[in-house]
Amino acid sequence: MAEHTDRETRRPTNEGPRAAARNRAAVVAAAREVFAEHGLEAPLSAIARRAGVGQAVLYRHLPDRASAVAAVLEENVREVEQAAEAEGATLSDVLGVLTWHLAGSAAFIGLLHSVRAGNPGGRPPAMALSERVQGALRSRLPTGHRLSERDLELAVAMVSVTVTGPTRSEREHRARAAWRLLGVEVGPVRPFSV
Amino acid sequence: MAEHTDRETRRPTNEGPRAAARNRAAVVAAAREVFAEHGLEAPLSAIARRAGVGQAVLYRHLPDRASAVAAVLEENVREVEQAAEAEGATLSDVLGVLTWHLAGSAAFIGLLHSVRAGNPGGRPPAMALSERVQGALRSRLPTGHRLSERDLELAVAMVSVTVTGPTRSEREHRARAAWRLLGVEVGPVRPFSV
Repeated sequence: MAEHTDRETRRPTNEGPRAAARNRAAVVAAAREVFAEHGLEAPLSAIARRAGVGQAVLYRHLPDRASAVAAVLEENVREVEQAAEAEGATLSDVLGVLTWHLAGSAAFIGLLHSVRAGNPGGRPPAMALSERVQGALRSRLPTGHRLSERDLELAVAMVSVTVTGPTRSEREHRARAAWRLLGVEVGPVRPFSV
Repeated sequence: MAEHTDRETRRPTNEGPRAAARNRAAVVAAAREVFAEHGLEAPLSAIARRAGVGQAVLYRHLPDRASAVAAVLEENVREVEQAAEAEGATLSDVLGVLTWHLAGSAAFIGLLHSVRAGNPGGRPPAMALSERVQGALRSRLPTGHRLSERDLELAVAMVSVTVTGPTRSEREHRARAAWRLLGVEVGPVRPFSV
C-alpha cells in the first residue's frame, strides 16, 4: 500500500538527482519485468507497484506507455552495444546477449522484425535503435565469416520471427534452434553485465 | 462499362455450371492479381472489374473479403500440394513453387508466419492450410536431409518473414537469399503447372 501514498495524498515529490536516477532505474526495470510477464498492454499502474513508487514518480519518468516501451528498448540496445564494446568480445558473445533480450521482450522482437520487414509504420526512432543493434553486431563480425554484413541483418530478422512461446526458456530454445539452422554459433544467452 | 451492367440493371444472372466454374476461376484469378498489386485492402469492385464480371457474379462466388482471401490461399496451397504430388518431384521443386507464392502474396506469407508464431488470432482454417503446406514439403523431404521435419517448419517461417519489398522480383530475391543462408536448395521459382 505504501506505493499508493504518493498519489493519494498528491504530496509533491522532491527527488534529488541521485534519488531521481535510482527511481528511473527502478521504474524502467519494473517496466521490463511487467511487459515481459503481461505483454505491452499491461496497466502502467502495475509498473509503479512493481517498482515500489507512486504514480507521480512513475509518470515523471515514464509519462506514457510509449515512453515506457522506448526506455526498455533503449536499455536492451545499450546492453547489446556494451556487449560488443567489451574487451575481447566475439560475435557469438554479442549474439548471446541479443538472444537473451529477444527471448525476454516481444517489443524488442518487433523492433528488429518490423524494421527489417520494411514496415511503413516503422518510425525513425525504431530504425535508429535497430541500426544500433546491427552496428554492434557488425563491429564483431570476423573477416571471412560465412555471413556477410547484409546476411547478418537478414539472419537477425529470421531468428526474431521464431522467438515465440509462453515461457522465456521456450522462446530461448526456439531462438537457439533458429541460429543453429543458420549455422551461427551463439555464446551464453544472458544479460550483459560488467 | 460492360461489367457494370449486371449490377445496374439488377438482371438475375443465370450461370450454367460451366459458366459458373469459369466465372469462379476468373474472379479468383482476378482476386489474386488485385491483392498482389494493391494489398488485401483493395476494393472488391476492383476484382469484379479485373475479372470482367458484374458485382452480382463476384458476390455469388466471393461474398466478402474473407472468402476472396481464403479462395486465393486455397489455390496457393493446392499448387504447392500438386507440385509435391508430381512424379519425381524433389523438395527443391516444391520449395520453388512455395517461394513463387510467397513472393506473390502477402496473405500467404501471413498464413505461414502467423501460424508458426503461435498467433492466438490464427484460426483453425489457416492452421489447416498451413499444415497442408507442411505436409506437402514433408512428403518430399529426403531421408538424411540436414533439415528435420520440425526444422522444415521453422525454416519456412524464417524465410517467410524476409519476403518483403515493393516488387515481386525483389521479394523473390530476398526469399532466395534467406534459403541460401539456411543452406537449402530451391528449384525454379515459378507457379505449378501441369
